Amino acid sequence: MTVHLDRRGFVLAAGGAIAASAIGGSALAQPAGRKLGYAIVGLGGYGLGQIIPQFKNCQHSRLVALVSGDAAKAKRVAAEYGVPPSGIYDYNNFDRIRDNPEVDIVYVCLPVSMHAEYTIRAAKAGKHVLCEKPMALSSKECEAMIAACRQAGKKLMIGYRCHFEPTNLEAIRRARAGEIGKLRYFRSEHGYTAGDPTAWRLKKAMSGGGSIMDIGIYALQAARYMTGEEPVAVYAKETTDRNDPRFREVEDMIEFQLEFPSGVIGSCMSMYSANRNQVLLMGDKGRIEMEPATGYSGQRLWVGRGRENEIQPPPGPGRNQFAGQLDHLSQCVIENREPVVPGEEGLRDIRIIEAVYQSAREKRRIALKA
Amino acid sequence: MTVHLDRRGFVLAAGGAIAASAIGGSALAQPAGRKLGYAIVGLGGYGLGQIIPQFKNCQHSRLVALVSGDAAKAKRVAAEYGVPPSGIYDYNNFDRIRDNPEVDIVYVCLPVSMHAEYTIRAAKAGKHVLCEKPMALSSKECEAMIAACRQAGKKLMIGYRCHFEPTNLEAIRRARAGEIGKLRYFRSEHGYTAGDPTAWRLKKAMSGGGSIMDIGIYALQAARYMTGEEPVAVYAKETTDRNDPRFREVEDMIEFQLEFPSGVIGSCMSMYSANRNQVLLMGDKGRIEMEPATGYSGQRLWVGRGRENEIQPPPGPGRNQFAGQLDHLSQCVIENREPVVPGEEGLRDIRIIEAVYQSAREKRRIALKA
Repeated sequence: MTVHLDRRGFVLAAGGAIAASAIGGSALAQPAGRKLGYAIVGLGGYGLGQIIPQFKNCQHSRLVALVSGDAAKAKRVAAEYGVPPSGIYDYNNFDRIRDNPEVDIVYVCLPVSMHAEYTIRAAKAGKHVLCEKPMALSSKECEAMIAACRQAGKKLMIGYRCHFEPTNLEAIRRARAGEIGKLRYFRSEHGYTAGDPTAWRLKKAMSGGGSIMDIGIYALQAARYMTGEEPVAVYAKETTDRNDPRFREVEDMIEFQLEFPSGVIGSCMSMYSANRNQVLLMGDKGRIEMEPATGYSGQRLWVGRGRENEIQPPPGPGRNQFAGQLDHLSQCVIENREPVVPGEEGLRDIRIIEAVYQSAREKRRIALKA
Repeated sequence: MTVHLDRRGFVLAAGGAIAASAIGGSALAQPAGRKLGYAIVGLGGYGLGQIIPQFKNCQHSRLVALVSGDAAKAKRVAAEYGVPPSGIYDYNNFDRIRDNPEVDIVYVCLPVSMHAEYTIRAAKAGKHVLCEKPMALSSKECEAMIAACRQAGKKLMIGYRCHFEPTNLEAIRRARAGEIGKLRYFRSEHGYTAGDPTAWRLKKAMSGGGSIMDIGIYALQAARYMTGEEPVAVYAKETTDRNDPRFREVEDMIEFQLEFPSGVIGSCMSMYSANRNQVLLMGDKGRIEMEPATGYSGQRLWVGRGRENEIQPPPGPGRNQFAGQLDHLSQCVIENREPVVPGEEGLRDIRIIEAVYQSAREKRRIALKA
């Protein structure tokens, strides 16, 4: 993960002068200043509520197409955001997006079970892909997605928005700069109260799992980007009230411990039965704390011996993390470089989550392959 | 542990009217209003710095004897606190304390390796015993201590001062009253920066182990008294820089996960390489948080959704936790009842700590016997 810092440093440096710094074949093919066109696949709460409204904050990205199974909804959203009728697709005619030169990038905002299919179909249609987290139901699906995008010569990025969030970026910078000394311990707890028992997130076939897939993955991601290390082993305990109608199929709470090569221990927990969103990194000279750590907004950061020293981070790469994420992939396409959170990054998390589930099932420590 | 609440309720109720409520054989033998006499064994930082100055805050306890290997120091402390020369002992003539009718209770404030010996010698000398935590080097020693006190017909209490600390008592009360709903998750991190590599706490033969024995035991205790449950299994990971001169013999950091029968997960960590002192209990309707949780003073408590609602607890059983602890054992002796934290309570923790060490050594989950 150390490489991310360098890459990110580059992203930040390039932020203000993207046209001038654009190099490579695909970049030369783009008219200077052109905004890349996004198709949003899935008009659910996240795509419609969080992502679509962000294009107005983007420098290098614009909304040009929508994919939805609900024609009336698609028409209404298209009208609101200026997407032409020719940019409206459904799940049957989705592959025709290949013939739409306005679409450079397909952003997959679907239930997890549909990530692999739509990523692969988008790549086959000749489009770059931004896919929401968790990347897919299994590492096998992730590998197929990576292979499909590689074969098509297209970028694949995972929607790990915290890599574009100023508070997290500043926390990472200070950890790497040694401000809290030698790192010893990481902890993150992420949770929220799940409501509607019929939500797709609570259906295993659609979500792939419970709280760890949806929200615990933020704790796992943070464990990796805050320490800059890859875990070598995991141990996990899951506990769920299976009589609760919300948790017939997926886990409520899971606590997992990560062993890092340097001796850092990562202690992570996710749950669907209470609200929680925090990150703590302890070194032998102080601590870095974020709470909330990975929300849509409102992050707070403290660095020092306790919470005496609250930090106001410098601006991130975009007007906010969502716009920063959208523009990052556009810039990567323009400049023909790899995103800071490529498919391989999503695959790594899914492999660890698979080991976490295996550990919880078998009640034993699982060593992770390097 | 639920029984503690009842016992504590009784302690609190009895607090103001101890002479009137005194019942039982030994109580009838005491003149009304008599303060029980304590012998402090060990004039180290804790005994001398924390305990001895507290007798002035006690209602039922007074300092009548000192046991030290340093005659000059003992003489000086005796003069300062009004202990007569006949109340000064060393480790060789300690057993003569049997002949001192002023001494009712022996408080063992020695390195852990000496707890068993001096508890057993005190019991054989016909004295009740208050022994510091951790109770002893091993569960076998703990069992011998319990047996010796039982055989002598004397009380044995462990110095778990948080059971007399108003903030912790209020946190327990609110957890049991259901204020945060169904309990789901407990977490406690306890640590401080170990300094002098020659300190007895860093010598395994004297301390029995590293941070978990000294400070992690607070996390373990809190996991049990906050949830009111006994763990059924543990998993632990230890990580220590053995090249650090402080950590040649004992562990720096250990993270241990406790499984409770109700499904609550307890996540505990102790370390000797940074300062940390907190407790969090999450239920499905809110959380209880203390930070610092178990210090000598300055505890803070929040109950609710975050840290919006800081609680000022009602007064505890004593003027402070130290005085409350000293007077509790005096009252138990006077009224012939069991302390809220008897030897069996110390034994329970040592058994769990042994399982934690075994888990860390064998890298596997250890089931605990009921």
